[in-house]
Amino acid sequence: MSRFISSKFDSLKPYEPGEQPTDKKYIKLNTNESPFSPSPLVQKAISDEEIRSLRLYPDPNANCLKNSLSKHYGVKKENIFIGNGSDEILALIFLAFCDEKTGMAFANITYSFYPVYCNLYNIKAEQIPVNSNFSINPRDYFNCSNNIIIANPNAPTGIALNIDDIESIIKNNKDRLVVVDEAYVDFGAKSCLPLIKKYDNLLIVRTFSKSRSLAGARIGYAFGNESLICDLEKVKFSFNSYTNSRLSLVAAIAALEDEDYFLKCRGVIIKTREKTYKQLKKLNFILLPSLANFIFAKPPVFISASSYYNKLKQMGILVRYFKNSNIDSWVRITIGSSEEMDTFIEKTKLIILEAQNENCKNGTQNK
Amino acid sequence: MSRFISSKFDSLKPYEPGEQPTDKKYIKLNTNESPFSPSPLVQKAISDEEIRSLRLYPDPNANCLKNSLSKHYGVKKENIFIGNGSDEILALIFLAFCDEKTGMAFANITYSFYPVYCNLYNIKAEQIPVNSNFSINPRDYFNCSNNIIIANPNAPTGIALNIDDIESIIKNNKDRLVVVDEAYVDFGAKSCLPLIKKYDNLLIVRTFSKSRSLAGARIGYAFGNESLICDLEKVKFSFNSYTNSRLSLVAAIAALEDEDYFLKCRGVIIKTREKTYKQLKKLNFILLPSLANFIFAKPPVFISASSYYNKLKQMGILVRYFKNSNIDSWVRITIGSSEEMDTFIEKTKLIILEAQNENCKNGTQNK
Repeated sequence: MSRFISSKFDSLKPYEPGEQPTDKKYIKLNTNESPFSPSPLVQKAISDEEIRSLRLYPDPNANCLKNSLSKHYGVKKENIFIGNGSDEILALIFLAFCDEKTGMAFANITYSFYPVYCNLYNIKAEQIPVNSNFSINPRDYFNCSNNIIIANPNAPTGIALNIDDIESIIKNNKDRLVVVDEAYVDFGAKSCLPLIKKYDNLLIVRTFSKSRSLAGARIGYAFGNESLICDLEKVKFSFNSYTNSRLSLVAAIAALEDEDYFLKCRGVIIKTREKTYKQLKKLNFILLPSLANFIFAKPPVFISASSYYNKLKQMGILVRYFKNSNIDSWVRITIGSSEEMDTFIEKTKLIILEAQNENCKNGTQNK
Repeated sequence: MSRFISSKFDSLKPYEPGEQPTDKKYIKLNTNESPFSPSPLVQKAISDEEIRSLRLYPDPNANCLKNSLSKHYGVKKENIFIGNGSDEILALIFLAFCDEKTGMAFANITYSFYPVYCNLYNIKAEQIPVNSNFSINPRDYFNCSNNIIIANPNAPTGIALNIDDIESIIKNNKDRLVVVDEAYVDFGAKSCLPLIKKYDNLLIVRTFSKSRSLAGARIGYAFGNESLICDLEKVKFSFNSYTNSRLSLVAAIAALEDEDYFLKCRGVIIKTREKTYKQLKKLNFILLPSLANFIFAKPPVFISASSYYNKLKQMGILVRYFKNSNIDSWVRITIGSSEEMDTFIEKTKLIILEAQNENCKNGTQNK
């Protein structure tokens, strides 16, 4: 730290994104990316003419993409906000709607960027414990004294709430903002989108990074009441007018047009997830019921999550391990391609077998 | 505004980017974009393979681009920060280094985003008047009680300070951060880059938007002391890990490689600026000596800036007019292509002639 940084940041602890080691080529199952390339329409949309147009600023209002999303999801343009990935939208939401008086409430096991935003803006973080099975109890969020953010499905557990439960939280917090982070909603959970017409205190945050295979393009979007969107625009235009690259906007529009491709990729990922779930179950992993493009898994008793993670990495497979956290006996495994998951299961079997043998040997020795 | 926005934003007034009307095709001389497409190497760099890789997150540390900038400018990687356009970097700088105790000082005529950042974060804005000829007096900035930001060349005047003057400001504020916004430095001014090795309180902010023809890609960068860069990284990773699109990073690297193209385009823009300057001078405009890719101009007495701007717009030419500001008798004219500027001068002559005739007629009538 320099002597110039504001003292308000004395204890700032940034978010740690998934590692990207460059020492060799890994099977990347650690940042919830799609195993599929973006739709071929994206390839076509990024034309030579579009590249030549990079000399020009993008439309700061992202009107074209708003029009596409409006048509696709049947919501008015005024109910749509576009950001530089859903993380930027979340960062702007925490800034716009929270302050020293009104903090943000969220599960004690959820997306680990939420407490970082609180820290960044000096906002109170109210962490609400999940149930022993990692599920969220909606009643714990009723009549909250802070704004609320819920990832649905939750990360890194993959567990989804049903809409009635979310609606009960929204209804019981009429004077609080409720943010539903639907980054992973396309892999089997139900979206709260129909509720934005009914409630003025609901914001839904989405992304093109996962189900649209565009993590590298940095496009997030939000749905909500017109006045909430206005507030977000106001704060955005006080931070950075042009947040999205021209080519990313074009890519997002093209990806949205290719519904067949989207459904096909999503179908394969869900199928592969269910297959991987069964295989890990057989290997005595403890698993949570995931509706996302990842599985949260606790290895069998005789091997620690940390050791399992390290052995996989040595074998060229990256999964996400949350060191020094309240979930450090678990790993989060992104659903890759069918072939990648076959290799993953094969290597996991080897690791488990070895650990089991080691364990038996030690057990025998200890007798 | 919704009833949920934080009361701290009751008087937030966002920055207004240059208009982008879509009713017809305009000659755009209003947002300081380059008249030239990005280097052909950019076209090549955005390959099919890169587009397919959009499924993956970008490198959150932008190491490849840092390596290129490091080589190109002869500074260490540790002295380089990458952001989503220079506006995002400025937004992060105001957030990181200013607070309720330490505000930001800047000229009363400069980039109009600076006071917006102050407003956004509740930071004191110390506005220092420019001289009557719009130049900055370095001594006005000595022993400042706040951090300092100077656009060099200044926007929208185009007037540049020499390095000795900037160094005197840095020297006389050893316990304050001095930010030099060099968005337009490539069009004839001298960069402060050599000073970052000498001073730990200097940050230089740059962009690929203007001289590298990549406004649509959203890539900004900053140079400074290692510990200042560390601070910026810390705040960035608490806001948004992945701020740059993969294709934008690739485009920036390619643009940086094509030095011949860069020099050629820059040369033409400077030549066209000088020609346009002489032509406007002949038409009795009051002009400031610009070292940027724009000219700040006050139309002759018999026509107001507002009227001149409106008439140009009717004729299909957009220039920047700062309504309701302390510079509302001036317009800022971006240097477009040689052909665009010929049309601009031709239309300007018509407007001036008409206004002059109108003026004479009224004068005769009033006699």
